[in-house]
Amino acid sequence: MPTISEKGKKMPASPIRKLVPYAEAAKKRGTHVIHLNIGQPDIKTPKVALDAIRNNTIEVLAYSMTEGSEEYRKKIANYYKKNDISVSHEEIIVTTGGSEALSFAMGTIMDPDDEIIIPEPFYANYNGFATASGVNVVPIVSTLENNFSLPPIAEFEKRITSKTKAILICNPGNPTGYLYTEEEIKQLAELVKKHNLFLVADEVYREFTYDGTEHYSILQLPDLEEHAIVVDSVSKRYSMCGARIGCLVSKNKTVMDTALKFAQARLSPPTFAQIASEAALDTPQEYFYDVIEEYVERRNILISELQKIDGVKVAVPKGAFYCVVELPVADADDFAQWILESFEMDGETVMVAPAAGFYATEGLGKNQIRIAYVLEKEQLIKAVHILSEALNTFPNK
Amino acid sequence: MPTISEKGKKMPASPIRKLVPYAEAAKKRGTHVIHLNIGQPDIKTPKVALDAIRNNTIEVLAYSMTEGSEEYRKKIANYYKKNDISVSHEEIIVTTGGSEALSFAMGTIMDPDDEIIIPEPFYANYNGFATASGVNVVPIVSTLENNFSLPPIAEFEKRITSKTKAILICNPGNPTGYLYTEEEIKQLAELVKKHNLFLVADEVYREFTYDGTEHYSILQLPDLEEHAIVVDSVSKRYSMCGARIGCLVSKNKTVMDTALKFAQARLSPPTFAQIASEAALDTPQEYFYDVIEEYVERRNILISELQKIDGVKVAVPKGAFYCVVELPVADADDFAQWILESFEMDGETVMVAPAAGFYATEGLGKNQIRIAYVLEKEQLIKAVHILSEALNTFPNK
Repeated sequence: MPTISEKGKKMPASPIRKLVPYAEAAKKRGTHVIHLNIGQPDIKTPKVALDAIRNNTIEVLAYSMTEGSEEYRKKIANYYKKNDISVSHEEIIVTTGGSEALSFAMGTIMDPDDEIIIPEPFYANYNGFATASGVNVVPIVSTLENNFSLPPIAEFEKRITSKTKAILICNPGNPTGYLYTEEEIKQLAELVKKHNLFLVADEVYREFTYDGTEHYSILQLPDLEEHAIVVDSVSKRYSMCGARIGCLVSKNKTVMDTALKFAQARLSPPTFAQIASEAALDTPQEYFYDVIEEYVERRNILISELQKIDGVKVAVPKGAFYCVVELPVADADDFAQWILESFEMDGETVMVAPAAGFYATEGLGKNQIRIAYVLEKEQLIKAVHILSEALNTFPNK
Repeated sequence: MPTISEKGKKMPASPIRKLVPYAEAAKKRGTHVIHLNIGQPDIKTPKVALDAIRNNTIEVLAYSMTEGSEEYRKKIANYYKKNDISVSHEEIIVTTGGSEALSFAMGTIMDPDDEIIIPEPFYANYNGFATASGVNVVPIVSTLENNFSLPPIAEFEKRITSKTKAILICNPGNPTGYLYTEEEIKQLAELVKKHNLFLVADEVYREFTYDGTEHYSILQLPDLEEHAIVVDSVSKRYSMCGARIGCLVSKNKTVMDTALKFAQARLSPPTFAQIASEAALDTPQEYFYDVIEEYVERRNILISELQKIDGVKVAVPKGAFYCVVELPVADADDFAQWILESFEMDGETVMVAPAAGFYATEGLGKNQIRIAYVLEKEQLIKAVHILSEALNTFPNK
């Protein structure tokens, strides 16, 4: 029997994958499962985007341009302009989700055994893309006590070697909800310039900033042009995760020319989804006011309910729609499975994402979970209530 | 300035990319360019697929399952059953185009520096996926004189090393149009079993077989189950290249479990396109009769017109909608550029794909081009007429 690759053996499974059978079993027993584990918003996709699809008059569903249609890229450039980011449509490649943008970025700037420094906890799939590209993630821990703010620059410098090619941040962060300050971004900018590295920023949650804070993009720094690579996506912005449209943005021409060759191999991004994404750019601003207000209310309720639980610690997220929660348990993996297998309240239970999968350092995050507040407030209150009661009952503390 | 990766430098550009500016310049001069260079069919997408999109009632465009919706995969399994291929929906992962299926296959079975044997000429993007995965393509030449049939098995055996992990075929072939016989497939099957390799078959043109021939899939061989991996796509089958939906099919459970981890990292295939692709499976059989009849007529006219030209050689394709044509020129790249730059007939010229990009061996295919017969017959006749006149005039023979 032929054998699979070493790379394939190393590929990490999704942090919640092993919980899925327990969730399914619970549903089969008739227990309703409240999903705190996934970043799939319940927010409606803007009507203007869905209408564009329903009213399309395509007769031959043809390939689009490899880099995305020129019209769409020009509109994206205009969107960036409104966000104080000056890029031309030639500095944008439309991708199949932010996922593909990150894959292209890694392929473009890194060879096997190269290193990328990422503050942890980080979006778990970064590990997958790194493994698939054969590159090594070098983590730097950020802590709940410090609200998951940027670790000291000295910690980055300690980890920079001749193999280091880039620093990757997610801003605002999944799973932390932390929004980097302009000052922090400028510190990172100085660092990558000093060591001649790329700074890759996953800014897919750009719009989701709270409490009067504002997102500061790495593309806003004029002298970072050759170093800055942004990964973006329509998934969360317009609650259209299923579109699978994102983009890669950089003013570094060699980076863009090279990324385009990776893009050419896969021909083009999906055509229908580009139509929806282009139309989504006409979403009225009120949509975002309402969505942000909704997320702030959800966050406030979630955090205040969590803080009522003895032994639970949670940072207050300033962006995105996730938070990392420390539980009074030894092993959150074990707890997450147990609650699906053995606990319910009035016929309901919850599914959470154990946070260990968001760390690269073995052993970190064992007593943490990630909660996505993408559900209605009543559901969130009920879910936290279930968590609280479950923590009281859980035998393996 | 930070530098890009060695991998990125090696990534091949699309074989026609450098001709694009010349085609654009021709259009700007007012010259109509007939495109023989791309495999984008002009055939209409089945109405049933387009209607499913127009009539969708989605309110939240959510992620689909990573492996594609169960319902869709069950319908795909049923489609295979009608094609004498017995697979369950659990042996199918829905991908973003056949492109992604091939990427997943390469990641799953090959590590950097591993080798994959491919008969050449082959679909140019195989080079891109191999470079992106860090693996080496080991080509075996197939010849126009032999209609691009399978090279002798002895030639494969000569090239098998400890690094060889797989043999990759495209059946029927792009760019050759060659349809492997059942006998040839069985020879390959014996070979991969003997040497414990995977056999990867790109069968995206399965339906496009002519002159009473029938496609024989590697999945039809019962004792090849652990070795066979099929790459498939809806792009050509239903003339919906822009959907970007394909699938990876294998009865090897370790392969599928591993490929799923690569799939999880990118979350899910596009949702709208899956709706269209699922509906496309209900396309009435008459659609295919008409399409096949149309392609056969186009092929017949194209081949007979080409054979009238002095010094032109062409194999008769039995499948897909491409043919490789040998021209009486030293450098087809040069000719393809010249015809766009300097030749026109009644305000029209043609764009062809130089075939050198479909070979891995440097120097092969220099006097060949690939023609895609995805245009109406009148257009094809006119295009060959232009080619013929251009060959008479071309100064650099």
